[in-house]
Amino acid sequence: MLTKDSRPIGVFDSGIGGLTVLKELALQFPQENFLYLGDTARLPYGSKSPQTIRKYSEQNILFLERQNVKAIVIACNTASSQLTEKEFDGLPIYNVIEPGSQRALEVSSSGRIGVLGTRATVNSQAYRKKILEYHPEAQVFDQACPLFVPLAEEGWDSDPVTNLIVFRYLGPLLQNKIDTLILGCTHYPILKSSIAKVTGSAVELVDSGEAIARWLSRDIEQGRLGVNHDGHRSIDIMTTDHSAHFTEVAHRILNPVKADAFRVVDL
Amino acid sequence: MLTKDSRPIGVFDSGIGGLTVLKELALQFPQENFLYLGDTARLPYGSKSPQTIRKYSEQNILFLERQNVKAIVIACNTASSQLTEKEFDGLPIYNVIEPGSQRALEVSSSGRIGVLGTRATVNSQAYRKKILEYHPEAQVFDQACPLFVPLAEEGWDSDPVTNLIVFRYLGPLLQNKIDTLILGCTHYPILKSSIAKVTGSAVELVDSGEAIARWLSRDIEQGRLGVNHDGHRSIDIMTTDHSAHFTEVAHRILNPVKADAFRVVDL
Repeated sequence: MLTKDSRPIGVFDSGIGGLTVLKELALQFPQENFLYLGDTARLPYGSKSPQTIRKYSEQNILFLERQNVKAIVIACNTASSQLTEKEFDGLPIYNVIEPGSQRALEVSSSGRIGVLGTRATVNSQAYRKKILEYHPEAQVFDQACPLFVPLAEEGWDSDPVTNLIVFRYLGPLLQNKIDTLILGCTHYPILKSSIAKVTGSAVELVDSGEAIARWLSRDIEQGRLGVNHDGHRSIDIMTTDHSAHFTEVAHRILNPVKADAFRVVDL
Repeated sequence: MLTKDSRPIGVFDSGIGGLTVLKELALQFPQENFLYLGDTARLPYGSKSPQTIRKYSEQNILFLERQNVKAIVIACNTASSQLTEKEFDGLPIYNVIEPGSQRALEVSSSGRIGVLGTRATVNSQAYRKKILEYHPEAQVFDQACPLFVPLAEEGWDSDPVTNLIVFRYLGPLLQNKIDTLILGCTHYPILKSSIAKVTGSAVELVDSGEAIARWLSRDIEQGRLGVNHDGHRSIDIMTTDHSAHFTEVAHRILNPVKADAFRVVDL
């Protein structure tokens, strides 16, 4: 029995990357309203300290709570690695680390799992710890890829330069014979075709949007999360700073999903 | 007649890049004390709005003023493009745009000048406006290079991947037959050898540290800026956020200059 709830699902990231999660959720839940917050005034979180990342994430959650959302998705691996609570003032919170780790263990046969991420995510060891908590015999190999975010934002996906850089970063992981690779930064699905070209079909790629969508579906089925029956939905995008570049890249990432509004907000 | 003044020269940037300016100034003024502020908690400025960049820059200047500096160098092109004052509470302020523009016009024969920078610096048109103000007949060709900062921070200078990306970004500028190229981001001198390999010897490279050092020398000669006669000097580096990565990259950039202290500060 599904419960009704027309409030939007809040999704936040430090900037643009979380839009890959929003796109996936918007496609999989075509009835749901979404409110996206990109904290562009303070991006990127990946180079900041754990304390700072946690403080900013809490401010984003408080802001979305005031917008009357029914759940919050932390569509940012860096923020997810510092804010692991499952609930905040009664609101369900979904981070990307747990769904991604669980999904990787489901699809891996050998238990040899690679993790790509920003320097902060890799340093936090968040995926490694979560995977080993679920399955202590797994082996985790990680690699920070600081060039992937600007490559994704430049729109150089499926580009020879990108393929070269992917090859450089992934070489050591492939030598470790991983059979599953977590795209541990929400920008990385933009580079998925270049990454798949280097890994080949023997390595399964796990991306955050797909993994979180499974958790939302489960919670909808279990009645933890209500569904919108209004018959129409809206997707609103808010950022904390003006940026023509954001809007341009956002349209490219979201396509074919259309946003209804873009606006700048103060937290 | 030189005036005496043992107070340090303040230098700030959003992060690591300004260390190329600090290094150049430390080498050229071996008697002077320096206080460097890297606003790492809020980096990078390059993706932020003009209003936000200006607000952060003013906070950095106020902080350095409270540390009793005798002058302030804005070692950040993005901040320089938004804060163009030459004085603040009687303190001389040096930005990178004017010295770089002037130097480019000095070394250019054809008046065809290229400018590389972050997206924010290029969008601000700061170099173009300043160069045309000095010399209305000049022709300016600019190019945003969002991948250069992470390449520099990865330490991939003189790397085949870097050479490829430099070639990609510089191609259009070289087709415009520039004879002078401003490295309009303080990170870019780290990639100078890759850039020089692509431009060849017919293009003169202008970097911010060298250009600012000339202005400081001029002001010392004219008595606008005093010199330290204490017989010893110190170089202190402050950041607004903890980062092991910052310290590691800082040592690499500053070499052979040695910093006396690293500490984290609240603005």
